[in-house]
Amino acid sequence: MKKLLLDSRGRKQIVDTGKDLHTHGGVISKKDLEDMAYSGPIRTHKGVRFFVANPTIVDYIEKMEKRAQIIYPKDSALIIAFTGIGSGSRVLEAGTGVAGLTLMLANTVRPEGRVFSYDTRSEHLEEAKKHLREMGLEKYVELKNSDIYNGPEENNLDLAVLDLPEPWRAIDKILPSLKFGGYLVSYSPSIEQTKRFVLSLPSSFQEIKTIEVLVRSWEISRERCRPNTRMIAHTGFITFARKLENARESERK
Amino acid sequence: MKKLLLDSRGRKQIVDTGKDLHTHGGVISKKDLEDMAYSGPIRTHKGVRFFVANPTIVDYIEKMEKRAQIIYPKDSALIIAFTGIGSGSRVLEAGTGVAGLTLMLANTVRPEGRVFSYDTRSEHLEEAKKHLREMGLEKYVELKNSDIYNGPEENNLDLAVLDLPEPWRAIDKILPSLKFGGYLVSYSPSIEQTKRFVLSLPSSFQEIKTIEVLVRSWEISRERCRPNTRMIAHTGFITFARKLENARESERK
Amino acid sequence: MKKLLLDSRGRKQIVDTGKDLHTHGGVISKKDLEDMAYSGPIRTHKGVRFFVANPTIVDYIEKMEKRAQIIYPKDSALIIAFTGIGSGSRVLEAGTGVAGLTLMLANTVRPEGRVFSYDTRSEHLEEAKKHLREMGLEKYVELKNSDIYNGPEENNLDLAVLDLPEPWRAIDKILPSLKFGGYLVSYSPSIEQTKRFVLSLPSSFQEIKTIEVLVRSWEISRERCRPNTRMIAHTGFITFARKLENARESERK
Amino acid sequence: MKKLLLDSRGRKQIVDTGKDLHTHGGVISKKDLEDMAYSGPIRTHKGVRFFVANPTIVDYIEKMEKRAQIIYPKDSALIIAFTGIGSGSRVLEAGTGVAGLTLMLANTVRPEGRVFSYDTRSEHLEEAKKHLREMGLEKYVELKNSDIYNGPEENNLDLAVLDLPEPWRAIDKILPSLKFGGYLVSYSPSIEQTKRFVLSLPSSFQEIKTIEVLVRSWEISRERCRPNTRMIAHTGFITFARKLENARESERK
Repeated sequence: MKKLLLDSRGRKQIVDTGKDLHTHGGVISKKDLEDMAYSGPIRTHKGVRFFVANPTIVDYIEKMEKRAQIIYPKDSALIIAFTGIGSGSRVLEAGTGVAGLTLMLANTVRPEGRVFSYDTRSEHLEEAKKHLREMGLEKYVELKNSDIYNGPEENNLDLAVLDLPEPWRAIDKILPSLKFGGYLVSYSPSIEQTKRFVLSLPSSFQEIKTIEVLVRSWEISRERCRPNTRMIAHTGFITFARKLENARESERK
Repeated sequence: MKKLLLDSRGRKQIVDTGKDLHTHGGVISKKDLEDMAYSGPIRTHKGVRFFVANPTIVDYIEKMEKRAQIIYPKDSALIIAFTGIGSGSRVLEAGTGVAGLTLMLANTVRPEGRVFSYDTRSEHLEEAKKHLREMGLEKYVELKNSDIYNGPEENNLDLAVLDLPEPWRAIDKILPSLKFGGYLVSYSPSIEQTKRFVLSLPSSFQEIKTIEVLVRSWEISRERCRPNTRMIAHTGFITFARKLENARESERK
Repeated sequence: MKKLLLDSRGRKQIVDTGKDLHTHGGVISKKDLEDMAYSGPIRTHKGVRFFVANPTIVDYIEKMEKRAQIIYPKDSALIIAFTGIGSGSRVLEAGTGVAGLTLMLANTVRPEGRVFSYDTRSEHLEEAKKHLREMGLEKYVELKNSDIYNGPEENNLDLAVLDLPEPWRAIDKILPSLKFGGYLVSYSPSIEQTKRFVLSLPSSFQEIKTIEVLVRSWEISRERCRPNTRMIAHTGFITFARKLENARESERK
Repeated sequence: MKKLLLDSRGRKQIVDTGKDLHTHGGVISKKDLEDMAYSGPIRTHKGVRFFVANPTIVDYIEKMEKRAQIIYPKDSALIIAFTGIGSGSRVLEAGTGVAGLTLMLANTVRPEGRVFSYDTRSEHLEEAKKHLREMGLEKYVELKNSDIYNGPEENNLDLAVLDLPEPWRAIDKILPSLKFGGYLVSYSPSIEQTKRFVLSLPSSFQEIKTIEVLVRSWEISRERCRPNTRMIAHTGFITFARKLENARESERK
């Protein structure tokens, strides 16, 4: 397991608990770090003070090595909230990447739900596995080295999230695996991918909506309040579609 | 329990399941609606087709009567994601209002976690209770007709969210009830409240951050892609603060 | 000529000066209104007070009848500023529409510069003429009932602004009429038009840049400061391209 | 006078015309640069090609040395457009700073109008003078080493723009110098300054409006269209107020 370590200037790091930790202010002993129940101030052998706490997933994502582009927490947050998933939900994800979204989904569906996460690149799955393990979330996720364009093995899904170069190729394969009322979500950096995905949706999908999420942070001090000078202007477009009709299902009445 | 009913033009309503439903296209029988396991197309006695599904919390919030200003799902989403709460978390909320945020929190912490929601206005608590019951979430929430400015009864909290006119008055009372590493979040429509809250935070709180969340929706069709003409420009400022030091706790080392 | 009339609650109207004006608070005499040099408080025969001033172009645009979609002042402002035009500039515009941009351009180039404004719809040109006349700007604009897709008659242009359904069809025709260093600007509501325009630009155009302009307004009062709840999320994408190479020109050195 | 020089990769520089120019691709002769009428491709003695054009004010501002924070063109653009100034207008500005706004105002009011620009820091005025001279705009601006808090010498102003730490201190002094219907504009980075300015406005000012301007740029290529990843999230708040009542003026009727 990992701990979050903060120095007196608020600088964060995610640290391992299995060995002595060498910091710029001296050594924190393995024993101190390993006391899992403990959160609070801690001192190095030189007496320099740090704070140790359990990292949130957002702490971890902020600091983890990102060998590929990830879906950021601001976007994961709205995917999770607007589709209504929660503890017990069954969620498919493709591709896994380095697990930026997977971590957030796993934390949402635990302990009874499951995330089925597809990727064809084994190096990504290795990275994802490491990240999930370090946050104690590996048991809620099935990492699958398989091509989602060939279709999923699961069914009765509450949500399927696509972060793929050609998400439109996965729609028909995923449709039968979704619950009625469930969501198909696609995340794409460019408007072309977004458009092609939306236009490829069959009439079984309704309530189609594409959004972008902007987070602006503020500087608040006694002297002045103002938005920070710079912000992230774009990550990706998020499209939501809901399975609300199925020609192949027999209708009541 | 409630169901989500959509007509062929995508118009949504949240309907009761305990009685025959009279629509603009004829009657849907109580029996058809009551079949809780069923989601799918359904026809009135006149043969007009509707779709019925389990509403998400966002569906419900969109359609519920809002007798007071609520925290909207876009903001609830980031409060939940950035504080890392999940199934099992212990969350305090004040005030309850008509449960816009409460519904989202309850869905996040269930089944083992709890939301402790304070409000001094009994009419709000009645409304909140109704909303929680209709979404089957009442058992995860303790509604408390009590003044948070007098302090909470709970402790070991992962998160406390304030939607109060004077959030600064609650800080000292809540501090001892938060876990080390836990979050205090305040939501305020105006920058004055936000500033006063931030400046009132004692040094026990660190990693202080204020944000605003903007969601822009797009129109995507074969002919043209463009952002919609209008958007919500403002709901509230969200301030996050993390309990990371406590002078009253004895320090290790 | 027109005057701006404001009542005591800040409500604006643009009024004619050639006749008695009947308001909800009584009559303001033709004579009072006609005194062109006068700006200030004025009273009706019933003693109700109004303020009269010369309208800015933005006042006029806000209140004028808009029988077609216009380019709004926020966008006109950046087109003018980023292309560096000023008094004396020669500017082509197509199409005229109802003169939302034309009014702003005319005010910028006067008195020595000229706006050459093309439209094929004579009803738009009639409307534009009326608006220009009412703001005293008609002498700086040549309205041309002609199809810009057939090319302009003018040359030595500092700027050509296109607000056309198919702006890419005009590029080659306009290129020879632009000064070296001059700008071609296209305004389009959709990203498809924008993309096709950008991809159609020959290498003679460089420094190509596409932007969108968002204006957010604030409510500032003693009690609270906050952005207004709603805003315009989109009008159009503005693309700037600069003529910086011309294969057909002989090069020095 | 200055020229804009672009290399084949679109990199810009503003260069002097009075001497040989040494570039990374060889020398461009004084004679070639000095030919003021010429714009177009030009070659160094080694045959490397550049483009030379007359710089716009925005080119110049982008490249000029900025020893102090300036008002950026996106904000200057809306100040100019929303107040309706143009050729012939009389505009007061305080403080001058390094002339970011002054250059834009001078280009707007020329040739008959005037900008009266106040600053108490002579080093700023020196810098401003240099910038205005290099763009050929010095004759439209009166730089005044004087404290605007003591009031302006001018009257009959169409616009007064304040970029001051304490803009509220200048309001009463400027009021009598403004035309009826004229604008007082204040630009401030923080919301506190903005609020204090707004609350200090006497009732002579009406139509009070505070805005912020956001410009988002896009990447448009054959493969993909998407907003650029980063943007400027904040420069300043712009407040507009219009002189529409004056207790000291006698009223007609």
